[in-house]
Amino acid sequence: MSEQQRDVLKLSRDWLSVQEVVDTVSSSSCGAISVFIGTTREDDVDGRKVIGLDYEAYEPMAQSEFTKLCADIRERWPTVTHVCVHHRLGWVEVGQASVVMAISSPHRHDGQQAIQHCISQLKAHIPIWKKEVYDTRDSSWKENAECSWAAQHKLPVTEK
Amino acid sequence: MSEQQRDVLKLSRDWLSVQEVVDTVSSSSCGAISVFIGTTREDDVDGRKVIGLDYEAYEPMAQSEFTKLCADIRERWPTVTHVCVHHRLGWVEVGQASVVMAISSPHRHDGQQAIQHCISQLKAHIPIWKKEVYDTRDSSWKENAECSWAAQHKLPVTEK
Repeated sequence: MSEQQRDVLKLSRDWLSVQEVVDTVSSSSCGAISVFIGTTREDDVDGRKVIGLDYEAYEPMAQSEFTKLCADIRERWPTVTHVCVHHRLGWVEVGQASVVMAISSPHRHDGQQAIQHCISQLKAHIPIWKKEVYDTRDSSWKENAECSWAAQHKLPVTEK
Repeated sequence: MSEQQRDVLKLSRDWLSVQEVVDTVSSSSCGAISVFIGTTREDDVDGRKVIGLDYEAYEPMAQSEFTKLCADIRERWPTVTHVCVHHRLGWVEVGQASVVMAISSPHRHDGQQAIQHCISQLKAHIPIWKKEVYDTRDSSWKENAECSWAAQHKLPVTEK
């Protein structure tokens, strides 16, 4: 492939632009862009309503894990052209996007498989933590069920 | 589900906004939005370079087939909340989007399966045709390999 492949991770405290992520992976050699957007969902937890999520990351490790993830994706689906992930940090209220990711590929099947793998592996390996904040104003750090290191590095379960 | 489900198809001669499609399916009850974007790919066909695609639709049938497709999606994945498809008509040059589709769901797995089904079935059943236009200025109507009615309603293969 003559085009230089792009693997872009951005951690941001600002509102995420889907268009910006899509434009980053756009390529005239590609007929398909697969996108996944994770948003804060209104949820009830033990009678408390989730009003938002608060994200923190260990940024240097997030970048190195993302680089590994992109190499893994390209090994599994060699036709993947560009990969871009923007992740919010800080406060993300209900309805807003916490993560927007896009993958471009010449044909759609590879990109659609790759985007599923990308979000699963991101949740499992990238050091980004979220705290659920409730309408009662208390909060709780959430482990990700898919997270490989959560059991070893357990965060406090509930805090005021 | 208390929220009214939205199934939106828009056929448009204008540039497609990914953000508009995403906003249409956005819901506070959903944690996931799966998106697929089909773009015009630079391609070589028998030594000719594709410079763009020209789309035509039979609009009343497109809407009724889309309604059937949404019912099929909801039967297969009952947690799907909203479905939105915007499709370009007319001239779409290399690099631009011809179709943008998004599906929202509380959790990501259903939405990711549903979006793959949506694009496959759209190509198979929705009466939208495309003509490849080459740098030599000749053109060719393209049958979709997945299209169920193409063999019965064959279009002229090449025209000047």
